[in-house]
Amino acid sequence: MILPTDPIENLSALIRCPSVTPTEGGALTALANMLEPLGFSIERTVFSESGTPDIHNLYARRSGNGPHLMFAGHTDVVPPGDESAWKHPPFSASIDNGEIYGRGAVDMKGGIACFVAAVARHIAEHGVPASDDKELKGGTETSPLKGSLSFLITGDEEGPGINGTVKLLDWAARRGEHWDAALVGEPTNPNRIGDMIKIGRRGSVSGTLTVRGVQGHAAYPHLAENPIRGLVTLIEALLDPALDTGTEDFQPSNLEVTTIDVGNAATNVIPAKATASFNIRFNDSWTEETIMAEIHNRLDRAAASNKLRSDRETPVIYDLVWSERPSPVFLTRDEKLIGTLSASIEAVTGRKPELSTSGGTSDARFIKNYCPVVEFGLVGRTMHMVDERAALSDLEMLTRIYQRFLKDFFA
Amino acid sequence: MILPTDPIENLSALIRCPSVTPTEGGALTALANMLEPLGFSIERTVFSESGTPDIHNLYARRSGNGPHLMFAGHTDVVPPGDESAWKHPPFSASIDNGEIYGRGAVDMKGGIACFVAAVARHIAEHGVPASDDKELKGGTETSPLKGSLSFLITGDEEGPGINGTVKLLDWAARRGEHWDAALVGEPTNPNRIGDMIKIGRRGSVSGTLTVRGVQGHAAYPHLAENPIRGLVTLIEALLDPALDTGTEDFQPSNLEVTTIDVGNAATNVIPAKATASFNIRFNDSWTEETIMAEIHNRLDRAAASNKLRSDRETPVIYDLVWSERPSPVFLTRDEKLIGTLSASIEAVTGRKPELSTSGGTSDARFIKNYCPVVEFGLVGRTMHMVDERAALSDLEMLTRIYQRFLKDFFA
Ligand SMILES: [Zn+2]
Ligand SMILES: [Zn+2]
Repeated sequence: MILPTDPIENLSALIRCPSVTPTEGGALTALANMLEPLGFSIERTVFSESGTPDIHNLYARRSGNGPHLMFAGHTDVVPPGDESAWKHPPFSASIDNGEIYGRGAVDMKGGIACFVAAVARHIAEHGVPASDDKELKGGTETSPLKGSLSFLITGDEEGPGINGTVKLLDWAARRGEHWDAALVGEPTNPNRIGDMIKIGRRGSVSGTLTVRGVQGHAAYPHLAENPIRGLVTLIEALLDPALDTGTEDFQPSNLEVTTIDVGNAATNVIPAKATASFNIRFNDSWTEETIMAEIHNRLDRAAASNKLRSDRETPVIYDLVWSERPSPVFLTRDEKLIGTLSASIEAVTGRKPELSTSGGTSDARFIKNYCPVVEFGLVGRTMHMVDERAALSDLEMLTRIYQRFLKDFFA
Repeated sequence: MILPTDPIENLSALIRCPSVTPTEGGALTALANMLEPLGFSIERTVFSESGTPDIHNLYARRSGNGPHLMFAGHTDVVPPGDESAWKHPPFSASIDNGEIYGRGAVDMKGGIACFVAAVARHIAEHGVPASDDKELKGGTETSPLKGSLSFLITGDEEGPGINGTVKLLDWAARRGEHWDAALVGEPTNPNRIGDMIKIGRRGSVSGTLTVRGVQGHAAYPHLAENPIRGLVTLIEALLDPALDTGTEDFQPSNLEVTTIDVGNAATNVIPAKATASFNIRFNDSWTEETIMAEIHNRLDRAAASNKLRSDRETPVIYDLVWSERPSPVFLTRDEKLIGTLSASIEAVTGRKPELSTSGGTSDARFIKNYCPVVEFGLVGRTMHMVDERAALSDLEMLTRIYQRFLKDFFA
């Protein structure tokens, strides 16, 4: 029986499963095959909801004494794009010049591969499995393993996220599961392993704005009402002034208008309708409710002014649809979790990681409702890009960090 | 030999020719058949240019003593749209409740039909044809016709206008043609025959603005550059302040943004590019050159301010392409032409027409380079719409106005 102590072998097996969201692609089966010999009991669930694809998820549990640590992540990957643009095929796990290539190498099959290797090494060193499997006795000690571990792995992190982590957490909690802390293995380091732990994330909310006018001929503007004037007025109010200047723990909140579309090809026609979409990343000076109220206030004030339409006294007629379940902002303040992880990183890399709340959302925003959660994984530079790849030395270093973290967290 | 003295018959023949731009559809042949018995010598020309469809045009000339009056217009029509939405088929010339239905009924086969009828009546009343056709002696007088007439008719007014009036004018001028005045038979009346003569038109120029940024993730705006911020800044500068407040003869100049397009469906992605198109209608306080310079100035100033991007010192990077040959502004000041037409209208309708410079462009903008030009025709209310139609009584009234105008102009 070979234990999955090598992160490179673990990652190769995972990359070879083409698990583009929502396809399981064999990735959860490959993971289960690694975890079973380590004494984990494995549950596979498929969640479904009308209008969304069925999603495979995995929950693996290994009992022990002491606190319960969850490792959370996803085996699904974003599409590889133009495969011919890759130096090595995106599901080949080719090794070239000290790097392993493949879609998901860093986001985040790599993080899973390293955590599995760390757990295998930890068990080999510190304890027999909780199960009856007597084959596993290679460790130097035979005392029962201190600490309790679970893997909460979804196949729907890169997709709409409806049949993934949210439902899996709820499903496990209903079965009586309780966690003391969670580590998400997403890529968090901008440049080198050890740069950055994510201890929180800004919230996110998106909306689509539609302004309706009256179609007409460009030569007879008084017979028409150009919705673009109103839309530009509203967009300016969204962008100016800035939402805030940041907080102690967070960057400034930010709003980006992601598209404006009218689709009128006739240069002499005033269109009837104009739409724009925007996305807001907000910090802990807001909640979902207060940020949405601020947006409504800004729009109502700007609509009443209708300032690019000085010849009319009518307000801009608009419609705002919030297009996504908002993601709440969160911030982890658990000293033990953050301190232990930070010290493990420093012990292995010699660098003190930045405690950051920057960047996009992750499934940690759901986990934070159950237990303290932090994120630490590989270097994110090539994620979602052609030639996504991880340095073999990074995989070994991350495995050692995770291993040290397990030892110290359960100590 | 039946002379084309009935505008309803003339119009029916023209409507039955499905002459949607750029198709001739038999309309110029039908017109030629009306003009030949009236003593006109007829030339048909086809103009072509690579990248544009060939266009049929007609120039008809009848010599006489005195000034030379050109009647100008077009037999091409805009597409009928959903034919099943019409009360009567768009090329059927059906008469229903005192109105004649059909695409082009008012824009502007109706104007041509009435002018042909007016000329036929005028010749019958005031002179023999210049040709040798002796059949035509129904008039009460036999003195040679006073005045000289031409029809300058294109099949490309509703299209790009490249192989139409511009080339036809040039072609005729090179053959030595010279005109003293021109009347364009476009529909000019908002509600009733006699409302309005057009004595000038605003100029028109269109442009397309492209702002380039740097694509990125909405959660990492500092790594991207959202072109929508820049575009909104530029658009605001185009719209505010107003270009002018109007002149003695003209409405205020006006700019309409006719479309904005980004086409980014991903709510978490900052797009790389945003474009907008606009159209300006400018009055006689500008020339094409000065209005275009004003736009460039506004854009450059706004680009330098980049005011919705307070965290950057870089200007907005934009590109402006003027997308249409600009139409110059023009204003006719010929007292005889305007006064005679105005008096003719008042004599027939009892109403003094407004001398207007409002509305869109017409081929008069080309003709004004050769001679004074005014526009007067039917009621425009249903032009370009489903169920385009003209009242039979309007056709008779317009014919009488044209007839009176011919008599007085040549008197
Ligand atoms: Zn990920
Ligand atoms: Zn027309």
